[in-house]
Amino acid sequence: MTKKILLSHGSGGIMMHNFINETILKKLSNPFLDKLNDQAIFDIDSTRLAFSTDSYVVDPIFFPGGNIGDLAVNGTVNDIAMCGAKPLYLSVGFIIEEGFDFEDLNRIIDSISDAAKKADVVVATGDTKVVPNGKADKIFINTSGVGIVPKDINLSGDNVKVGDKIILSGTIGDHGMTILTEREGISIKGNLKSDSMALNKLTEKMLQHTKKINCMRDPTRGGVATTLNEIALQSNVGMVIYENKIPVKESVKASCEILGFDPLYVANEGKLLAFVSSDVAEKLVEVMRSTEEGKDADIIGEVVSSHPKKVVMNTILGGNRIVNMLTGEQLPRIC
Amino acid sequence: MTKKILLSHGSGGIMMHNFINETILKKLSNPFLDKLNDQAIFDIDSTRLAFSTDSYVVDPIFFPGGNIGDLAVNGTVNDIAMCGAKPLYLSVGFIIEEGFDFEDLNRIIDSISDAAKKADVVVATGDTKVVPNGKADKIFINTSGVGIVPKDINLSGDNVKVGDKIILSGTIGDHGMTILTEREGISIKGNLKSDSMALNKLTEKMLQHTKKINCMRDPTRGGVATTLNEIALQSNVGMVIYENKIPVKESVKASCEILGFDPLYVANEGKLLAFVSSDVAEKLVEVMRSTEEGKDADIIGEVVSSHPKKVVMNTILGGNRIVNMLTGEQLPRIC
Repeated sequence: MTKKILLSHGSGGIMMHNFINETILKKLSNPFLDKLNDQAIFDIDSTRLAFSTDSYVVDPIFFPGGNIGDLAVNGTVNDIAMCGAKPLYLSVGFIIEEGFDFEDLNRIIDSISDAAKKADVVVATGDTKVVPNGKADKIFINTSGVGIVPKDINLSGDNVKVGDKIILSGTIGDHGMTILTEREGISIKGNLKSDSMALNKLTEKMLQHTKKINCMRDPTRGGVATTLNEIALQSNVGMVIYENKIPVKESVKASCEILGFDPLYVANEGKLLAFVSSDVAEKLVEVMRSTEEGKDADIIGEVVSSHPKKVVMNTILGGNRIVNMLTGEQLPRIC
Repeated sequence: MTKKILLSHGSGGIMMHNFINETILKKLSNPFLDKLNDQAIFDIDSTRLAFSTDSYVVDPIFFPGGNIGDLAVNGTVNDIAMCGAKPLYLSVGFIIEEGFDFEDLNRIIDSISDAAKKADVVVATGDTKVVPNGKADKIFINTSGVGIVPKDINLSGDNVKVGDKIILSGTIGDHGMTILTEREGISIKGNLKSDSMALNKLTEKMLQHTKKINCMRDPTRGGVATTLNEIALQSNVGMVIYENKIPVKESVKASCEILGFDPLYVANEGKLLAFVSSDVAEKLVEVMRSTEEGKDADIIGEVVSSHPKKVVMNTILGGNRIVNMLTGEQLPRIC
C-alpha cells in the first residue's frame, strides 16, 4: 500500500515533526532549515535578515476576533518577531476558489491592510491564483516576511539554558477553541474569541529592556505543550511548568471541558513563550504586563537539567505529569 | 447579485489586471505594490533587496519537462532575476490534500532540491499545511524568494524607452501547450515539453555584458502578448513586434492550431523579454545565444513613440494587427 499524507502530518504535533525530519529535511537539509526554527536568519552583505513563510487555510475564514486576512499578517509577523527581528515587508499570495464572493474578499483585504498598518509592516509584493470551483476551499493565503535582525541578538530554539525561566505572555487556547466551536456551531457563554494579534511591538519592548532572552516562540499549532517539547528537544534540556500559573479563560476552559480538549495543546495566535535568564525574569514580566499584548504575562516554569528533552507539569492537585508533544491530529485547519 | 471571483481573475490577462488595480491595490496601495512589477525592491540598511512570491496550482502536477516542484523554484527564481537581482534564498509553503501519495511528494521534493541546486539558491524556511480530502486539489506550493540587487542596476516595467529593442530569449508557448495537452489527454507528435527553467544565470551574464538593459520580464500567465501590453502601459510607450522573428516550435504550433490557441498568449516558464538600448541589442543577442537558456534569442521588435500603450504586430502576411492583452480566461491552473 502506498503511504498517504494524513491530516496529522500538518497538525504541528509529533507526526508533523517526524514528517518534516524524515521527508523534507532528508532532501532539503541545509544549515537554515536544519535549525527547525520558524524563521531563517542569514546575512546578505552586512545586513542580518530574518525570513519566514506560512500558508493559512483556516476554516471558517471569518471568526470572532478576526479572519484569515489578519491571521495571515499577524502569524508571519510573529514568526519573524520571535527571533528578535523587526518585521518590515510581507508578501501575500492568494489561492482563491472560483465563485468566491468579492464582498468577502474585500473584507479580507481590508483586514490585511489594517493588520499590516497596526504591525507597521508593508505588503510589498503579491500573487493571485484562481482555481476552479471545488479545487480549493474558498481561500488560502500565504504570507512570507522579511525583517531585520539587530546585530547583538541571537535567539534560537537551541539556545535555551538550564536555569532559564519560562515566561508566557497571556491566556492560552483562545484561538483554537474559537475556531473549533465556530466550525462545529457550538455556542459557549463568555465571549470566546481568537487572540490573533501581532506581537512585534511587545518583543521589541522586551528586547529593549533586556538582552538576556535566549529564545522566544509563539505556540501556534500544537499549542504550548508542543512548543515546549520542541524547544526541550532542540536545546536538550528538561522543563518544569506549573499548572496554576498558566492562565486559561473561563470560556476556553468550558469549551475544552465540553469537547475533551486540553488547552495546553490548543493553538494560540497572539501569545509567546520566552526563555530568559532567571535574574531578569521578574522585571521582564513587569515590563510585559505594562503592554496590552502581555498584560497577563507570568513566569510559568523553568528549564532544568534533570529529565532532558522532557516537559513535566506540577499539577494543581500537587502531582507531576509528563506533558508530551501533540500526538496525531487534534484540529485541522486551525490557522 | 453578489459579484463572484471568476477563473479569469487569475488568468494573467486584462480581468486580472483590472481586478488587481481595483480590488487589491485600492486597499493595499503603497510605492512597492503600485509599481506592478513581479517583485518588490527595497533597501534594508544599505542592502538593496528583491522580494517576490508566487503560488503554484498547476494541473497536472507532473508533466513532460518538469513538475510543480521545479516549477515553483524556477518561477520565483525568475521573478527575482528579472529585476537584475541575484536570487539567494527561497521559502517553500506546501498545502497538501489529505490522502496525497508520499511517493509523489518525495518526487516533488526531489525536484525542488534539484532545481534549487541548479539555480544556486537555498531553501531556507518552509511550512506545511494539510487540508481534508476534497478541500484542495492534491498539492499547492507557494515559494517566496529574496535576492540581492546590485547597486548600479535599475530595471522596471516603467523604465522602457522609445527606441529600445525587444529581445525574446527563445521559443514561446512550450509550457502552456504542454500543460493543456497533458490535462486534456491530447497526444501531439514532436515531444511537446515544458520549458520550466531558471533564468538567473542568463540574466547575470546579460548584465555582466551590458548595463543598458531597461527592463526584463518573464512572459508567464497571459504569454508574450500580455507581458508586452503590461509594459507598454507601465512605460506609456508603443511597441512593434515582427511575427516572423518569434520562434514557435512545430509541436507548439500544431497543438495551438488544433485547439485554436494563439501562442502569443500561451504561458512560458523559462523565457524572458528584455528591453535594451538599440546600440547594444545585437551584441547582447550573441551573448545570449552562447548560453543554453538563450540559444534561440532574437530581436523580435522595438519600442516606438507612435500608438502609446498599444502593441502592433507586423504579420508574416505583410499586414499589421493590434495585439491586445489576454481577455478573460484562457487556461486556468497553468502554473
